[in-house]
Amino acid sequence: MSTQKINEGDYVLLYLNQRKTYLVRVEAGKSFHTHKGFVKFDDLIGKEYGSTVLSSLNIEFKALKPLLRDYIMKSVRKTQITYPKDIALIVMFSGIGSGSRVVEAGTGTGALTTALAHYVKPNGKVYSYEIRAEFLKTAEKNLKRASLIDFVELKNKDVTVGIDEKDVDAVILDLATPWLVVPYAYNALKPCRTIISFSPTIDQVVKTVETLKENAFVDMETVECLMRGMQIERGKTRPQTFMTGHTGYITFARKTIK
Amino acid sequence: MSTQKINEGDYVLLYLNQRKTYLVRVEAGKSFHTHKGFVKFDDLIGKEYGSTVLSSLNIEFKALKPLLRDYIMKSVRKTQITYPKDIALIVMFSGIGSGSRVVEAGTGTGALTTALAHYVKPNGKVYSYEIRAEFLKTAEKNLKRASLIDFVELKNKDVTVGIDEKDVDAVILDLATPWLVVPYAYNALKPCRTIISFSPTIDQVVKTVETLKENAFVDMETVECLMRGMQIERGKTRPQTFMTGHTGYITFARKTIK
Amino acid sequence: MSTQKINEGDYVLLYLNQRKTYLVRVEAGKSFHTHKGFVKFDDLIGKEYGSTVLSSLNIEFKALKPLLRDYIMKSVRKTQITYPKDIALIVMFSGIGSGSRVVEAGTGTGALTTALAHYVKPNGKVYSYEIRAEFLKTAEKNLKRASLIDFVELKNKDVTVGIDEKDVDAVILDLATPWLVVPYAYNALKPCRTIISFSPTIDQVVKTVETLKENAFVDMETVECLMRGMQIERGKTRPQTFMTGHTGYITFARKTIK
Amino acid sequence: MSTQKINEGDYVLLYLNQRKTYLVRVEAGKSFHTHKGFVKFDDLIGKEYGSTVLSSLNIEFKALKPLLRDYIMKSVRKTQITYPKDIALIVMFSGIGSGSRVVEAGTGTGALTTALAHYVKPNGKVYSYEIRAEFLKTAEKNLKRASLIDFVELKNKDVTVGIDEKDVDAVILDLATPWLVVPYAYNALKPCRTIISFSPTIDQVVKTVETLKENAFVDMETVECLMRGMQIERGKTRPQTFMTGHTGYITFARKTIK
Repeated sequence: MSTQKINEGDYVLLYLNQRKTYLVRVEAGKSFHTHKGFVKFDDLIGKEYGSTVLSSLNIEFKALKPLLRDYIMKSVRKTQITYPKDIALIVMFSGIGSGSRVVEAGTGTGALTTALAHYVKPNGKVYSYEIRAEFLKTAEKNLKRASLIDFVELKNKDVTVGIDEKDVDAVILDLATPWLVVPYAYNALKPCRTIISFSPTIDQVVKTVETLKENAFVDMETVECLMRGMQIERGKTRPQTFMTGHTGYITFARKTIK
Repeated sequence: MSTQKINEGDYVLLYLNQRKTYLVRVEAGKSFHTHKGFVKFDDLIGKEYGSTVLSSLNIEFKALKPLLRDYIMKSVRKTQITYPKDIALIVMFSGIGSGSRVVEAGTGTGALTTALAHYVKPNGKVYSYEIRAEFLKTAEKNLKRASLIDFVELKNKDVTVGIDEKDVDAVILDLATPWLVVPYAYNALKPCRTIISFSPTIDQVVKTVETLKENAFVDMETVECLMRGMQIERGKTRPQTFMTGHTGYITFARKTIK
Repeated sequence: MSTQKINEGDYVLLYLNQRKTYLVRVEAGKSFHTHKGFVKFDDLIGKEYGSTVLSSLNIEFKALKPLLRDYIMKSVRKTQITYPKDIALIVMFSGIGSGSRVVEAGTGTGALTTALAHYVKPNGKVYSYEIRAEFLKTAEKNLKRASLIDFVELKNKDVTVGIDEKDVDAVILDLATPWLVVPYAYNALKPCRTIISFSPTIDQVVKTVETLKENAFVDMETVECLMRGMQIERGKTRPQTFMTGHTGYITFARKTIK
Repeated sequence: MSTQKINEGDYVLLYLNQRKTYLVRVEAGKSFHTHKGFVKFDDLIGKEYGSTVLSSLNIEFKALKPLLRDYIMKSVRKTQITYPKDIALIVMFSGIGSGSRVVEAGTGTGALTTALAHYVKPNGKVYSYEIRAEFLKTAEKNLKRASLIDFVELKNKDVTVGIDEKDVDAVILDLATPWLVVPYAYNALKPCRTIISFSPTIDQVVKTVETLKENAFVDMETVECLMRGMQIERGKTRPQTFMTGHTGYITFARKTIK
C-alpha cells in the first residue's frame, strides 16, 4: 500500500471525533492546543497520513489528509450561507469540469471559489469578483491553504457593472442583486452554458427569474435543498434533532442564441 | 462570441419546455417525432448550438448542447434511485477531482458512473463493478453517448468477493449489501481517502456503519437530502406540489491506518 | 368489553389494506363491489364493528367504524389542498374546543368544516361561507354522512363583503383573497381570539400578513408542515418514496384591542 | 363587542413580540419583571383582555388571554420532545373529541395531557399514567393553570404492567417501551378505536409495529412531521434559518375484533 508522509508546512486535519476537527499547518518545534491537551507537530512530521497521534493528555487524534470538503468547511464563517450541500448542487447543475472557465461573484471568504477551483483544475480558471477588499484577502488565504490559488483570478471589481471575460462555461452568482448581473452574464457565456444564482429570499429569486426570461435564457429551474443528518446506532437510530431549515434557493438557467 | 456548430453524429438536447426535453443523435436525412410535430435533423446540421428550430407544426424547439446533468437524467431509469441531488453530494463528499482513481459498484445503468467519469477526466479512471451483464451494456451505451467511456473500466465482477485495484482515491457503493465490501474497500483505498455508500433502507445503513467502525474507518456521517422545486412566477410563487420523499441515505467515512 | 353492532343505514369503513378503504352506507339487500369481489351488506348487519367479513372472492375485509379522519379524507377531492396535517395544525393553532363559535370560509367540499364541527360539538357552531352553491351541496352531503350537520350553518354568501356573526372564537380562511376578509374578521372576533389563513402561494401570505399588521392583530406566525410516511418492516424500514411537497402555508394571528 | 375583563388570579399572556411572551398569574400589589422593565399587575386588573399595558420602561406589552397552545408551550421543558405539531396530529389521528375517554402514558410535564383534556371536555376524561411522582406534580400544576385538571385523572402507576380502564376511545403512548403496552391497550380499547405511539427512534417504531400486527390491530401508519417557520416581510420573505429536524415518529393503528 502506498502511503504519504507528513512534512513540515503540510496541512493536517486533526480528528478527535466527528464534531471536533482542526485544520492545522505543521510547523517544526511548535504544537497545537486543544481542550484535550496539545499535539506536538514534531510527533506528526515523518508520520504517514492516517496515523494516530497522542496529545499531551494521552488522547488519540487521527492525522488526516484534508479533503475538498474540509477546506470548504474551514473557510466558511458563521455569517455565510453557502453550505456544502448547496455547493455540491451548484457545481453539478453548472456542468463545469476539468478545463472549464467560470465567472463567480461575490467571492466572500472563498468557500464556493475553493470548490469551483478544485473542479476546473488543472487547465481551467475561476474569475472571482468581489467589491470588498478585505474578503479577497481572506479568500486568498483560504485558497492558498487548499493549494488552489493558481486556478483562480481574484478580482476586486463590481460585477453588477460588467464582466470582463468572454466565452465562459458558467456564471455563478451569490450576491444580493443577481438580476443586475444577468445581461452581463449573457454576454460572457458561451451559448447553451449555464448561469446559477444562489439567493436566500424569494423576492431575489422572482426578480432574477424574470430577468433571465427577458434575456434569452431557458430551462429556468429553482430548487431548495434540505440536508438532515442521521444518528446511526443500533437501537438508537434516528434523525438528528437539529438541522438547518434554510440556506438559500438555487436558480439555474441556460443561454440560448437571441 | 465564439459559437459551436451542430454536426452529423452530435447529440442535441431538443428543448420544448422545462418538462419536455429530448436527447437525440443528429442523423442526416432523418427526423425526430414529438407530440408537437417532427423536427428534421437536416434543419439542425450546420446551425449553432443554442439556436431555435421549428417543428413540422411550427412549434419552436431550442437545440441545446447537452450538459452533464442531461446525460445523467437521460440514463436514469424509473427503477433507479440515485438522483442528481445524491450524485452531487456523493461527488462532493468523496473529495475526488480531475486525475482521481475511483472504484464504483454497482454500475447499474451508469448514471453515477457518468458523473464520476466527468469529474476524474482526463487523467483519472473509474473502475465500475457490476454482476449483471445486461446493465453493463446499457451503461456502456450511456457512457459513449456522453463521450466519457474512455475514463471508465466496466468490470463484470462481483465486488462483494474482492476489489482488484489498489491505492484508489474513493470507493463508492450503491448496492444491496455494502457492508460486505467494506473490508475490500479498506485494502483498496489510500490512507485518509473516502468510502461512500448510498442505501435506501435504515437497516443497510446501520450494518454498514457498524462494519466501518470495525475496519478502522473514522468520521462516519450519514445524511439524507431532500430537494424541492419552486414554481417562480410573480403573484403565484410557491413550492411545487409533488416531490420525491426519499431516495436513499448517504454514508461517508475516511480510512485511517490500523 | 362493550361492542357496537352495525345497523342498516350506518356508515362502515371497509378496510382491505392501508391503501384500499371504502366508506359505505349499509343498505339491506344490496352489496358493494370492489376489485376483490363484492361484499353483501346483509353480511354486515348485526355484526360488531371491527369484525371481519368475506367478499364473494373470499377476501377478508374489516368492517371498521369510521373516525373523523376517514370522513375528512373521503370528503377531499383531488383538486383540494387542505390535508389532514394542515387541518390538525389549524385546529390546534385556532384554540377552539367544545362550545366554540367559528367562522369559516370558503366551505369547499367541507373537509375542514367537518373537522371544525367535530371539535366544537355539541354546543358550539361553525358558520361556513361559500359563494359557489354547488360546493355547499357537496359539503352538506359530507357533513350529514359524518353526523355533524347540526353543528354547522352553511351560508351561501361572499365573506369578502362581510361577516354576519359577532363575538366568535376563531375565523378560519381558505380562500383566494384572505386579506380582503381581515377587517371583517377583526370585527367578528372576540378580543385575543385567532384568525388562521391557509394559502398555497407566498404572495397571498405576504398580503395577508401586511393586512393583519394594519388591523391590530399581533403574534403573526406563518408555518408550513411537511408530513412524510415511513415504511416500517424489519430489514426494509425507510421513508416512503413519494410525498406531497407542498399544500399551503398556515398563517396565525391574534386580535388585540385598538 | 363583548369583552372580558382581567381579574386577580387570572392568567395573562404578556406579549412583547413573537419571541418574547410570558404566561403570568395576576396578583394584586405585585409586578412582573422583564428585561424591558416591570409590569404592575394592578395596571392589568380591570382592563380588558387584548389591551395594551406599559412597562416601567414605557415599553408596550399586550395583555392576551392564553390559548391552548400557550398552555402547551409553557408546560414544555427543553428536554421534552412532543411539540405542538405532533400533538396536533396525535389528536387528529386519535379521532377523539368532546366526551371521549382516553388513556395516556407517560404524563411527563403534561403538555400532551393538556391538549387531550382540552378536546375531551366537558364530559370526557383523560387517564394519564406516570411512574415518576415528581413529573405528576409538575403536570398537575400545569393542568390547574390551564383550568383542565377536572378532566384528567393523574395515575402514579406503571402502564407497562397494565391498564385499569375499559372501553376507552384512544390509548396514546409517549414512553420508552410502547410495545410493552400494546396488549393492555388492546384490552382497554373499544373495537375500531385507536392507539397512537410517539417515539424518537426507528427501533422503537419497528418493535411497536410488529407488536401491533400480532395483536389484531390494522391500518398501521407511521409518519413524521416537519414544521418550518417562514419570515414574512415584503422583499425579505424566506424560510427561517433554524428548524427542528426531528422530534419523533407518530404511529397509528386501529383495533379489530380477534
